[in-house]
This record gives sequence, C-alpha cells and structure tokens, in this order.
Amino acid sequence: MPETLTLYTAKICPYAHRVELALAEAKAEYKRFDVDLGNKPEWYAPKVNPASKVPAVAYGGPDVPPDQPSPNSTKIAESLVLLEFVADLYPSAKLLPEDPVLRAKVRFFIDAVSNKFNPAYFSYVITGKGNQEGLIQAFKDIQVLLPETGFAVGNEWSIADASITPFIARLFVALENDLGAYAVGEGPKTLELIKTSPELKRIQTYIQDVTTRPSFTSTFDPELIKTGLTKRFANITRASS
Amino acid sequence: MPETLTLYTAKICPYAHRVELALAEAKAEYKRFDVDLGNKPEWYAPKVNPASKVPAVAYGGPDVPPDQPSPNSTKIAESLVLLEFVADLYPSAKLLPEDPVLRAKVRFFIDAVSNKFNPAYFSYVITGKGNQEGLIQAFKDIQVLLPETGFAVGNEWSIADASITPFIARLFVALENDLGAYAVGEGPKTLELIKTSPELKRIQTYIQDVTTRPSFTSTFDPELIKTGLTKRFANITRASS
Ligand SMILES: [Ca+2]
Repeated sequence: MPETLTLYTAKICPYAHRVELALAEAKAEYKRFDVDLGNKPEWYAPKVNPASKVPAVAYGGPDVPPDQPSPNSTKIAESLVLLEFVADLYPSAKLLPEDPVLRAKVRFFIDAVSNKFNPAYFSYVITGKGNQEGLIQAFKDIQVLLPETGFAVGNEWSIADASITPFIARLFVALENDLGAYAVGEGPKTLELIKTSPELKRIQTYIQDVTTRPSFTSTFDPELIKTGLTKRFANITRASS
Repeated sequence: MPETLTLYTAKICPYAHRVELALAEAKAEYKRFDVDLGNKPEWYAPKVNPASKVPAVAYGGPDVPPDQPSPNSTKIAESLVLLEFVADLYPSAKLLPEDPVLRAKVRFFIDAVSNKFNPAYFSYVITGKGNQEGLIQAFKDIQVLLPETGFAVGNEWSIADASITPFIARLFVALENDLGAYAVGEGPKTLELIKTSPELKRIQTYIQDVTTRPSFTSTFDPELIKTGLTKRFANITRASS
C-alpha cells in the first residue's frame, strides 16, 4: 500500500505531464501542487528539488500541506525516474510489462524519445535550428519501434507511452497555432504533413490511440498550452516563409 | 530460467563494461563476442545492432555461434537498458533493491552519472573543452548522492555502481598515464588531487570499494585500456603545461 504522495507539477511542462499520465493510469490517489514556473515559491528548491525543476515527488512522511513539505518525506526528481517509480509503486496497474524482454523494449523506446524524438522537437520548435525534415525523420524513427497495433510495446499502455505523449501533444498545439521558432506560416503545413503523410500511417493511428485515453484527456488542457506557448514565442525573431 | 544470452562487447568500451559488470555480479552464464570497434564485422549492424555500437545482447532463440546471430533471437542495445534487463533477468542477484524508493535512488544516481559525471569526464579527457575544476565538481556531485558507507544506494552493490565504475576506472588510467586532451603533464596531478583531496574523502572510499570487487577485477584490463587510449591520443594537439 503506497504512502502519501505529493506531485509538484506544472500543466505547461511535458516532463511533469509524463508523471501525471502514469499516476492517472495507476488510478493513484495523490496531492498535487502546481508550481508557477515563472515565479517559484522560495521553499521549493531548498525543501523539494534542489534543481528547482518539476516534476518532483514527496513520498511518505507525515500528512502535510504540499506548500509545507516535511523533511521526513523522500523527495524524488527526474521524470523518467518518476515513471519507473510510479510503475514500481503500483505493480497491479502494469505500467511496465512483466516480461524482461518487453521491459527492455519499453526502456529502449524511452531512450529513443530522449535521444531522437525530443532533440528533433526542440530544435524545430524551440531553438529553430532544426527543420521540418528532421522532425518528420524523428516521427519515422519512433514509428519503426511500434508494433503493428496497440501502444509502444504491445496491447497494454506503458510508461513508454507516457514518455512521448506529452511532447507530441504540445508539438501539435504549437504547430496548429503556428507558434515556434520555425518560419512564419510553416506550423500548420508541418502539422498537416504529420497528420496525413502515408509514410506516417502507423504513428498517426498511434497518436490517436494515446491521445484519446482518459488518462490523457483528463490531464491535458490545450488552451493553457496555447497561452503558454504564445507568451514564450511572443518576442522571438522568425524567418518569413 | 534465462535463455541463451550473447553479449557483443569490447574491452575498451565503458558502456559495454557496465553490462559485463552486471552479468558478473549476477554470475550469469553467457557467451561473449568481442567486436573490433576499428573494424567491425560486416554482419554486426544488419544482424545485431543497427546503430553499430556495443554493447548489444542477443537473447533467446537457437544456440548459434555469436558470429552467426539468429534472426530468431531478440536483440537489445543501449547500456542502461541492458543494466535494467540483466537486473530483471536475474532477480535473485538483487542488482536492484526491491523497495521502490531505493530503486528510484538507483535510477536518480544513474541519471547523475549520465548528465553530470560523464559530460565532465568527456569534456576534460576527450575533447579538452573542460577543465580540472569541472571534473572535481563532478566527483562532488556524485559524492553527495552516496550514503555514509557502502555502495551507491546502500550496502548492496547495484546497477547504479555498474553505471559509473567503468568511467572512473578509465579516467584513472588516462590520468595516470597523462593521456587525454588536457595540458601535457596535468593528468598525474589531477589524479593525485582526486585520490587525496580531503573534500573527496567519501568518494575515495567508494572508488576503493567498487574497484576491489571481483566483478571489477575480473573484467578490467588496465594495460589494454592504456594501449587503446595511447592510440586514441597519439595525434592530438595539446597545450603544454
Ligand atoms: Ca539521457
């Protein structure tokens, strides 16, 4: 029986969203504290996460209000560490398969998200150093890992799916609203390509499958993401298309 | 009961060494194939690891010679994925603790090795872009994670220890022999500092503890590392000290 768990999170943050998805799939009871990333409470770094980032978890210890974290709870940070932690805490939710080979596939998929998909996303949308081609290639790199049907490693949703869904969802909001460091007007065209290219058929179905689950629809607010991204990209210089 | 396991490895490679350590601690029976990294067999990328790197594992399938990998075995790559895989395959070896909080500490430690320790090592020794101060700081960053005695997360050796030991061991060989991209003559001085600084007392003991285990002494050949590093740094331009 898991102890008290408090998640320090932020709706805008894809890393934090990973953990919200896993907790939702586990039907975990937990407290949440939304950290204002532009104005973090002064107790957050010293008492919860020295790196001052979300997500972080306070686990165990006395039942305290989230803004008065106890020194007697264990603090855990890093989204991928937390995905495994949630899977370990709630074994009956089967957020990881039991078979060692399938577990390795989950972790290899997560590694591809960290080292292939996310760098392409960041360089296209956030820094503007990447290009559409690189982004499409990243979708193909993930697509080849997918089984013919179902989720990242089979018929059961796993933390592999948690690792990528928040990034795809934010990418789609960014592109739809033409928010990002790419050339003006390119966003909706890139989105159209991702959603309709016959070369991306398998991952198109996959994206449908992961974004229609209740764990996702109950934890994702596209309007809030749009507002956040609009602020973020308000003052950047972009090429005209 | 685990199936046939073949490890594709290379003595010079710290990533591959991680997996050799875990397999040694698990007292696993396995076949090994040493990949000549300067002249890889032409079947290696298509039949074992498309990324053409070591380590990789062929698991299950028919009992074949390692240089004739079967299409019917599962191929698994990435050293950190493989550490978890070995821990999952040999649960009685307890390469990961059972407690979810301690498991999270193992994974947080590994994350710090990937994102703090190794970048400092590479930038000091391999690219020459870092400096001694950055390397010492990296040792401190790891040291703060260590419990008062024992291994990375307690009295039992874990895959957290496997993640860092190969890098420390290669660093020490490089420094001792003044091999690296730092200024000529600086290596032995940096090594002396790491080994004797009162600020690094805890990690000095830790390094003793991990490098005197049979899993390490039976899998590490300092002469071979010295030869490999000598070749690697034969033609680079270095500052004089
Ligand atoms: Ca990483």
